[in-house]
Amino acid sequence: MTVQKEITLKPRPRGFHLITNEILQLLPELKSISKGIANIFIQHTSASLTINENADPSVRSDMETYFNRAVPESDMKYYNHTLEGADDMTSHIKSSILGSSVTIPITKGNFNLGTWQGIYLCEHRNHGGARRIVVTITGE
Amino acid sequence: MTVQKEITLKPRPRGFHLITNEILQLLPELKSISKGIANIFIQHTSASLTINENADPSVRSDMETYFNRAVPESDMKYYNHTLEGADDMTSHIKSSILGSSVTIPITKGNFNLGTWQGIYLCEHRNHGGARRIVVTITGE
Amino acid sequence: MTVQKEITLKPRPRGFHLITNEILQLLPELKSISKGIANIFIQHTSASLTINENADPSVRSDMETYFNRAVPESDMKYYNHTLEGADDMTSHIKSSILGSSVTIPITKGNFNLGTWQGIYLCEHRNHGGARRIVVTITGE
Repeated sequence: MTVQKEITLKPRPRGFHLITNEILQLLPELKSISKGIANIFIQHTSASLTINENADPSVRSDMETYFNRAVPESDMKYYNHTLEGADDMTSHIKSSILGSSVTIPITKGNFNLGTWQGIYLCEHRNHGGARRIVVTITGE
Repeated sequence: MTVQKEITLKPRPRGFHLITNEILQLLPELKSISKGIANIFIQHTSASLTINENADPSVRSDMETYFNRAVPESDMKYYNHTLEGADDMTSHIKSSILGSSVTIPITKGNFNLGTWQGIYLCEHRNHGGARRIVVTITGE
Repeated sequence: MTVQKEITLKPRPRGFHLITNEILQLLPELKSISKGIANIFIQHTSASLTINENADPSVRSDMETYFNRAVPESDMKYYNHTLEGADDMTSHIKSSILGSSVTIPITKGNFNLGTWQGIYLCEHRNHGGARRIVVTITGE
């Protein structure tokens, strides 16, 4: 059994955002899957998806702090792809480090995440706009 | 055909650990799959999974050396999520860089890995304890 | 329905290379899948796969610039796995940061990528040689 759904996420400010509940609300089909996997894929190269801590908002802001230091915009001088500004190439780099999809087990009609896990949308652009994701569920 | 199994890995010290054989021993179901994929997912945000070199143990210790330098605990001063110590936020960061799951092809009843590939458990905490993983196999 | 195919990619120079069309040409089976996922897996630990911008070649060269600075060969002195030279351990590190597989949604017989997305082979070795990948399609 394969279920596929395209979802548009509303624009969010640059940073890391918890989107688990937003995705779950748009996926009533999940309830009919007893075991399987969900691949959640973002159709952009300047935003990414990851799984991390779902409780303390400071994890999200600390992630932003880390990635801005690890992929600094002041390195723009080393890059050629700079037409759209200092957050252009750095966003592409961050999106490959973090990844364009997460794959999550489904058990008894729900994402089988750990207690402290949530799905993050990582918005790397200053003005990224709405983001499209494709969710594909395979299971039975 | 979908097979799903929850596995608890014994506590391991901080560092990178080869767990391919431990997972294979707990997955006799693999033998009945001629082609498909296995998603191996860790239900934690301070440990991660990756695939790397399976022969020379110094690759595992060099990985620990690299990630401790790339995500240094001395940067703790820049973070707010520090309640559990210097290895708290750095572990969350490392887990998103490396990822919470690996997806591996299955061919003729076995993981279809390259000759030199193995599955690593990346334990980022000083005292991480036992780690739960969920393996989901989809195939025929 | 599960389709699996082993593909050998020709040797490429060190750097980031767009391989979307090469993979599509070798996957006529894709046309018969209306919805599903494709897992593209590289059987090596010194090369990796990622998804990034498919239009401007300078994104690929800027990615090489970034990763050479983030995982510098001059750090070789900190590593023990150095038998094959300065690009040995750094290649293993880069491959775990970027990842050994990408999972992509399939919709109506095609990869359902965003307009600007392409599949990159990331060749981290100076002389990596031909690279083997395994593509597994699950869907209906």
